[in-house]
This record gives sequence, structure tokens and C-alpha cells, in this order.
Amino acid sequence: MTTPETGAEFNQDEWVIDHNNKSALSIRVKGECLFKEQSPFQVVEVFDTYDRGKMLTIDRMVMCTESDEANYHEMIVHVPMFANSSIKDVLVIGAGDGGTIRELMRHPGIEKVTMVEIDEVVVRASKQFLPTISSALEHPKLNLLIDDGIKFVKDAANASYDLVIIDSSDPVGPSEGLFSKSFYEDVYRCLRPGGVVTIQSESPLFHPDAFVDLNKCLKEVFGADFVHPYLVFIPMYPTGMWSLTYCSKQGQHPVNNFDRDSSTQFTALHNLRYYNPDIHQAAFALPGYIQQKIIST
Amino acid sequence: MTTPETGAEFNQDEWVIDHNNKSALSIRVKGECLFKEQSPFQVVEVFDTYDRGKMLTIDRMVMCTESDEANYHEMIVHVPMFANSSIKDVLVIGAGDGGTIRELMRHPGIEKVTMVEIDEVVVRASKQFLPTISSALEHPKLNLLIDDGIKFVKDAANASYDLVIIDSSDPVGPSEGLFSKSFYEDVYRCLRPGGVVTIQSESPLFHPDAFVDLNKCLKEVFGADFVHPYLVFIPMYPTGMWSLTYCSKQGQHPVNNFDRDSSTQFTALHNLRYYNPDIHQAAFALPGYIQQKIIST
Repeated sequence: MTTPETGAEFNQDEWVIDHNNKSALSIRVKGECLFKEQSPFQVVEVFDTYDRGKMLTIDRMVMCTESDEANYHEMIVHVPMFANSSIKDVLVIGAGDGGTIRELMRHPGIEKVTMVEIDEVVVRASKQFLPTISSALEHPKLNLLIDDGIKFVKDAANASYDLVIIDSSDPVGPSEGLFSKSFYEDVYRCLRPGGVVTIQSESPLFHPDAFVDLNKCLKEVFGADFVHPYLVFIPMYPTGMWSLTYCSKQGQHPVNNFDRDSSTQFTALHNLRYYNPDIHQAAFALPGYIQQKIIST
Repeated sequence: MTTPETGAEFNQDEWVIDHNNKSALSIRVKGECLFKEQSPFQVVEVFDTYDRGKMLTIDRMVMCTESDEANYHEMIVHVPMFANSSIKDVLVIGAGDGGTIRELMRHPGIEKVTMVEIDEVVVRASKQFLPTISSALEHPKLNLLIDDGIKFVKDAANASYDLVIIDSSDPVGPSEGLFSKSFYEDVYRCLRPGGVVTIQSESPLFHPDAFVDLNKCLKEVFGADFVHPYLVFIPMYPTGMWSLTYCSKQGQHPVNNFDRDSSTQFTALHNLRYYNPDIHQAAFALPGYIQQKIIST
């Protein structure tokens, strides 16, 4: 690819391009990929980059880079953990790279984590090439199942989890069912009263329809007062603006009574890269044009 | 440009690519540019895009798009305005597209705005092709000068402005001197006691050196307690994470006593796209790894 005017010439093979036909984010990689395997579901690859460390892609969409993964993983875990003091039993759907599990296991109060990832190739690639992200995938409190998360939640017992985390890829391929109302009805059912779910809810700008549709679906299932989208800077994803959503089964508001003291101590103890108590609160402030997208849903 | 794996083929001429040799943000444009002129300083172009409205570029770096410009312009203006109630006399350096002037003129308390833009071609292109952005460039309270901002500030009288806004492009070409200590010493001198400056201070991730160096320079000039970087989602810029910096001449903290009631009323009255009182406060919360970059400077 050639940049007009500047005259710089790039070898196109050195770039991984994540695009939606209107805009594209390209990350330069060092030569050939380190890992490539076609699983039954998708093409899983690992690259080395020039300034973002190792990078995991699925069907050439960026899943995580070593430089930026903490933004996402810390925010999907520590926000629900410091808004609720009694989380012991956690279910995680997806999360094959292991970053969400690493963050969960920093919390000594958690007694058990069940993780259901559909694609063992993602887990294997991450264990081999992303050791700082996958570091807790052998943790004794973890029950790691290679299985269909949608079916698992359908079969789960009522009121059996304090926290569910939906750490999925985009709503195409195996993740498509993770954006449906029937799936979230099952999630709601298997949460204990007051239980919480946090969800990868797409970019309000790059995937506006998915963001809006999911918000509407969640409000129908959880009730509008219990659905709280929040924003994270994720420079490894197109537009850099990504949303997560916190919903509770008639439980705690994510900000009004969150445990700021514990959050402050934890942030310092673990030298977190992104999350801190100010960020916890700030993430729920939405720009006007993002509020407008979901105000009538 | 061809996307590997997906097989999608793009006509490279249809993309404007903003890059730093390690990552790139590309925005698809409709055919030929609408405007192109080589000024004495730079190549100024206007394109039409598929989902971001019209786009202004300088030397093929994206300056603004109609879809996203409000994020930047509202945040560089309304944050200092609601942190300080007595701003009447404003100096703006740069800002050729006019978006900053449009936002300033929403405040009836402002009596006079002096704008110093070095390149009349930027002003002309914006007036012709970006009417919603440049809409206030004929405002009777505006004194628009085509001149060198560095020289203008050097010659300005002591203590003559309540607010200075540095709305510059990146520190290459004509904007390079806007990132120097001597320039900010002049800005400090021409501010009234308690006066404020807000500054385009680059991406902490895409231009980390410029962000860190400028922060250090500003702390030397204003004192560390009076320098407050804040973050804005700007999807039209690479990484999507951009910083502005609020500094005062021993004046108001930007958040501790900001006028939330007036901010709330103003946001509703003008149906702002990005700024609101929650965002005003939230923008100053910095992720851990951004704090780390500037903690020792």
C-alpha cells in the first residue's frame, strides 16, 4: 500500500487490516504470522507487531494486542467486582485468550470460575504465544470447558452465578447467537438475585447497529434501569471507542455505591494499566451523540 | 489495497491513509478530492467520505470530519468556559476550519475573539466546503488575522487575554513552534491572572513523545499543579484517543468548582453532540498507563 503524497511505500503483506468498507485500521506486522490454524469455526492467527507486541486475530479481525489488552480485560472485570462485594461464583463465555481470567483471579474472594470457550484453537494459540495474557488459564479455581456457550447457558441451573461475563468476538460466525434475546433470557435466569453481567457490546461508531440492537435487547430482559453501557479507549480496535455493558438482576448500580476505597487499594497493589477508581466512574459518562443512539430504545 | 483472507479488493485511490509506519487509519473517500491547493505551508484538501461527511486534510493528515469534529471543538472550548465564569476576551491560535470559533460564539458572555491562523487556504477551503464547521467565521465579535501565531503571541501585551486556545495541527511544519517552551512563556505572559489556556496536546499513544514533552514543558511554565491533561474520543484520528490540556495562570481547577448547573442548561439548549457535565468531569480521569507516562515529568 502506498501513501499518497508522502510517497512512503509499504509492503502490503506486512499489514493486518481491520475494516468495514468505510474505514480501516491497519497494524504493521513483522513478516509472516507466528501461528495460523483454521479451526472448525474461524481462522486463528498470531502476529508480532512493531509497537503493540504480539497480536491475536480471528478471521483477520484484531482480538487483542499485548500493548492494549489490559484496557479491555481490566474494565470488563474490575467494574463489576468493585460495584459488588459478594461475587464468588463466576461464569465466563468466550475469553479464549485468557485475559479476563487473569484479571478475575486477582480477586481472592472469587471461589470458582467456569469458562466456556467454543474454540480450543484460540486457547492453545494464546497459551503458546501470549503467555502474559493467558497466564491464569491453569489456575486451580478455573473450570475451563471447550463447549458452546449458548447451549451451556440454556442448560445452566437457575440462580447459579453471581457474575456472568460475555467476552465474545463480533456478532458474526460462532458469536452471532451471543447477541440474541433468548441467550440473555437464559443469562438472566441463571444469575442469582442481584447478580451482574458484563458484556462486550461493540463500538457505538464502528458497529452502531449491533450496539443499539443489543442495548434494546438488554433493556427488555433486565429492565431499562438496570442496563448501563460504559466506554473504554481500545486503540487496537477501529475508531478506538468501544463499549461494554453492565446489567444487573435488580442489583447494584455500577457507580452510585461502588467500593472506592477497595478499588483504590487494588489498583495500587496490582499496578493496573488502565482501570482505577476515577476511570471506573468516568467510563459511564456518555457523550451526547452516544446517548442519543440509545435514548429511545 | 486488498484485505488478506477476506478477498475484498479496494481501489487504493479511494482511501486517505493517516499513518506513523506502525499503524494506520484509513478513511474511504468518494472519488477525487473536492478541493486541493498547495499553500505556502502545506497541501490543503477536502474530500467527501462514505460515512463521515466532508473531511479536511493537511498533507494528507486528517484535520476534521463533519461526523466527528464536534468531539474536539466542544471539548477544547466548553471545558475552560464552564470552569471559569468571567472569560470575555479570547485569543485563538490556529483553528482555521472555524469549529472552535463556532463553539466560542455560543457563549454570550464572550466579548471579543481574536483568531490568528497562519494559512488562509485552510480558512477559504472550510468556508467553501465545510459550512457547518466554519459557520461563525464572519461573526461580528471575531477579529480574524492571517498571521504567524508565534510572532503574534510574542508581540502581545502582558495580561491581555482571559482564555487562549491553541488549536494547532501536529508538531511538524508551521505548527512545530507551537510545541516550544518559549511559545508557552509568551502565552503565560499574555494571560490575565487566573487566565486559562487549552491546548491540542496530541495522542498519548500515536505521538507519545510529543504528548510527554509538551506536558513537561507546560509544567515548567505553569507549575505542575496547574496543568491538567484530559482525554477525548476522536475516531477520525489514529488510535481514537486524543488529549487536550487545560492550564491556568494560578487559576481555577477545571473540575473541582466547575459550573455544573450552567453546563447542564447550556448542553441542553445547544443540543451539543459530545460535551455534557458528566463528560466534562470524566475527561480528566486518566488510565493508569497514561498517568505513568507523565508522572515523572
